Amino acid sequence: MIYLDNAATSFPKPKEVYEAVDKCLREYGANPGRSGHKLALKAGRIIYETRELICQLFNIDNPMQIIFTYNATDSLNLAIKGILSKGDHVITSGMEHNSVIRPIKALEEIGVENTIVECDDEGIIKVDKLKSAIKKNTKLIAITHASNVTGSLMPIEKISKIAKENSILLLVDAAQTAGVYNIDVKKMNIDLLAFPGHKGLMGPQGTGALYIREGIKLRHMKEGGTGSKSESLLQPEIIPDRYESGTPNTPGIAGLGAGIKYILNIGIDNIRKHEEELTEYMINGLEKINEVIIYGPKDIKRKASVISINIGDLDSSEVSYILDQAFNIAVRSGLHCAPLAHKTLGTFEQGTIRFSIGYFNTKQDIDRALEAIKKICEEME
Amino acid sequence: MIYLDNAATSFPKPKEVYEAVDKCLREYGANPGRSGHKLALKAGRIIYETRELICQLFNIDNPMQIIFTYNATDSLNLAIKGILSKGDHVITSGMEHNSVIRPIKALEEIGVENTIVECDDEGIIKVDKLKSAIKKNTKLIAITHASNVTGSLMPIEKISKIAKENSILLLVDAAQTAGVYNIDVKKMNIDLLAFPGHKGLMGPQGTGALYIREGIKLRHMKEGGTGSKSESLLQPEIIPDRYESGTPNTPGIAGLGAGIKYILNIGIDNIRKHEEELTEYMINGLEKINEVIIYGPKDIKRKASVISINIGDLDSSEVSYILDQAFNIAVRSGLHCAPLAHKTLGTFEQGTIRFSIGYFNTKQDIDRALEAIKKICEEME
Repeated sequence: MIYLDNAATSFPKPKEVYEAVDKCLREYGANPGRSGHKLALKAGRIIYETRELICQLFNIDNPMQIIFTYNATDSLNLAIKGILSKGDHVITSGMEHNSVIRPIKALEEIGVENTIVECDDEGIIKVDKLKSAIKKNTKLIAITHASNVTGSLMPIEKISKIAKENSILLLVDAAQTAGVYNIDVKKMNIDLLAFPGHKGLMGPQGTGALYIREGIKLRHMKEGGTGSKSESLLQPEIIPDRYESGTPNTPGIAGLGAGIKYILNIGIDNIRKHEEELTEYMINGLEKINEVIIYGPKDIKRKASVISINIGDLDSSEVSYILDQAFNIAVRSGLHCAPLAHKTLGTFEQGTIRFSIGYFNTKQDIDRALEAIKKICEEME
Repeated sequence: MIYLDNAATSFPKPKEVYEAVDKCLREYGANPGRSGHKLALKAGRIIYETRELICQLFNIDNPMQIIFTYNATDSLNLAIKGILSKGDHVITSGMEHNSVIRPIKALEEIGVENTIVECDDEGIIKVDKLKSAIKKNTKLIAITHASNVTGSLMPIEKISKIAKENSILLLVDAAQTAGVYNIDVKKMNIDLLAFPGHKGLMGPQGTGALYIREGIKLRHMKEGGTGSKSESLLQPEIIPDRYESGTPNTPGIAGLGAGIKYILNIGIDNIRKHEEELTEYMINGLEKINEVIIYGPKDIKRKASVISINIGDLDSSEVSYILDQAFNIAVRSGLHCAPLAHKTLGTFEQGTIRFSIGYFNTKQDIDRALEAIKKICEEME
């Protein structure tokens, strides 16, 4: 199996990740932050260590500002609903995943306004349009770092400058970039950073996190046992407990920590370089196939390692089915949970076939994928 | 290490659980329900299988009525906030965990009333008081199946009869009973059943679920990608997608499935019998130690395998620290995230030392615990 569906979940993981999960389950599978015995303390320690590793990766000072969640969707819901109240206005882009757009649309019901800013043909936000969308009551800009459909990288630093000038909070969805692109929350002026653990960060599914800049207080989405202030019937104020109720996914977080250690060890620039090279190599190959339409930027400096294509007017699901069945190549087809992006690209009906490259892919994988696409094109004739 | 903290997280797990998690991570760690390739389908299948196993355990007809969550707290929040609206009234008990009481208290802010019904000295709800707490606008009774502090079993069938007669929905928190006690949602007339995966069900942390009786529609707590109805900016109506956004914890759910298979294989009655025998054995031993105060019922048919004690007026945290450091026995002390229960028991200041027994404990473990307690009592003199 050639796995080119890393934008959904990275696979495989470094073996250290499997080992960390297994070790946690077998050797110290107790409840962190509740009891005070040795196993519970060890479980609590691995969670704290993972917080520290995340801080190291994103240049965050205080590990307690990292909130562990179920997945990036959970993080995004907490951020969006934790910030916005009736009468507020939020700006987002026309390339967002449903994990950003659906919570924003749901908030219309309680009187939160939104503006969806147009993107260009390559799926990159029009910064002037963003500027002119700002209103007196704009409280938040919520935007993806890179599109999960085309990989189009958004100009986060330009956007954060505008946000700061207008005292608007900036929430970045790093689902496609965390672990591959350099994200420095200070330099990039990011107030809230949402990310999954199971994609670029190489951790297991069931992990995600939200970074909240110090001084920003969100509404909590859930209340429950926190192992702290047990005497109170109200959710505690202290962070991260305020936002983390119930038993966390300790083995998952242990695995996530191992994934991040692996990344820090290889060096994020080396990971990106490898993915960029393969992405460029694939785009070059695709450009030579007449029937292939490539969506989004072709310049590797303007996109992450996600390539969306169509083959003529073939149904994208059919092509992905053939790739799987006849060529043993795993990709994703359809709308990729991002309908707006497909309206931007003009692929709302056809969907796209998405090849998403990970650190463990090789040039041979790309060659095999290109050959398969060529064969499908030949069959078409 | 003698692990007697199973009410926090069961440990160890059956080896099949470790193996299922590892196999999922290494062999089919793709994204379920999103892409259509072989690995993604396999991931989707294991999740469906786990839904079916849960149905088998609790006598549920439709696997799609099982909602996977991050933990029982997540399930309880979804149930409580999904059902209750401004003007509604909810009844709960004076033995609840913060995962029930904190969401209920948080709802006061939006105008949801609540009544906390008194429990007797043993921590069992007074059914007549429950009856008289019912008001015209009572929409929900939310109650634990067994106290996490004393193991006191609530008379769920009596309560569900009252609920049904008054057209009130019944939410049961099975955090301490799922996987050990027979729960039949039909026979017991349970509308909503919340449970963790990592306690009696022997699965990994990061798993939980909510059963929703067919025909009950909850407000969704989160919106996002569901892999279904991707074209819509609104959360889909179909179940379980309506309540399950973002990538699930597939390896965790695979492990949970293995845990439930193990339980079905051993037989839930055999598991309970083993835990009951050890609990009875421990209570009998404790009763012979003068300095020990036991809280909650002593009759094994009226309690789950959770024993809360104090030794004279010794600080509960100090005792648990000694048990850990000097005797290598893992227990939990303090308020166990259930302040109301301690008000009921009169242990709000001192807390309690909690021994919680699991299927993998042995008579020798209990002997060692009893000896340790005796030694601590001798030292006191």
